[in-house]
Amino acid sequence: MKPKRYQAVIEVLLRPGVFDPQGQAVTAALHALGHDAVEDVRVGKLVRVMVSAENAEAARALAEQMCRELLANPVLENYQVRVEEAGVAH
Amino acid sequence: MKPKRYQAVIEVLLRPGVFDPQGQAVTAALHALGHDAVEDVRVGKLVRVMVSAENAEAARALAEQMCRELLANPVLENYQVRVEEAGVAH
Repeated sequence: MKPKRYQAVIEVLLRPGVFDPQGQAVTAALHALGHDAVEDVRVGKLVRVMVSAENAEAARALAEQMCRELLANPVLENYQVRVEEAGVAH
Repeated sequence: MKPKRYQAVIEVLLRPGVFDPQGQAVTAALHALGHDAVEDVRVGKLVRVMVSAENAEAARALAEQMCRELLANPVLENYQVRVEEAGVAH
């Protein structure tokens, strides 16, 4: 079967309780701009991987393996993977 | 009406065609780890904003305004906003 292209969108955020200075800086900047409704901001990474795989489950498994091996630090960060079909592999 | 807390998750990615050296570095690192199925990687920012608002539409409008004012550079970056209810504001 011809593999398909999938887009795996990986969201990496610091775990709750881990100090996030970048998030605090953004919170302060938003308050300075008058956005008083903002309570808290966390800033993380978004990694979009285009990958060829037999099916969406295989693409998800690959993406989760990449997170464990390289993309996330499991001590400090949580990650979440979302997979979407992106057409036929070329 | 008591405002509710919403979680606005903002995904910021470089526009197609804008050179992404961080994405290229991650692609090379994944290939070096044996992930040959990876075709392309783009690395962006994930911003999670906790905001109080009357309803989800208002929370989304606030988040989009924050993107235009501070969080994204419209020349180089695209953004996408997702809003989820997060409980009663305190």
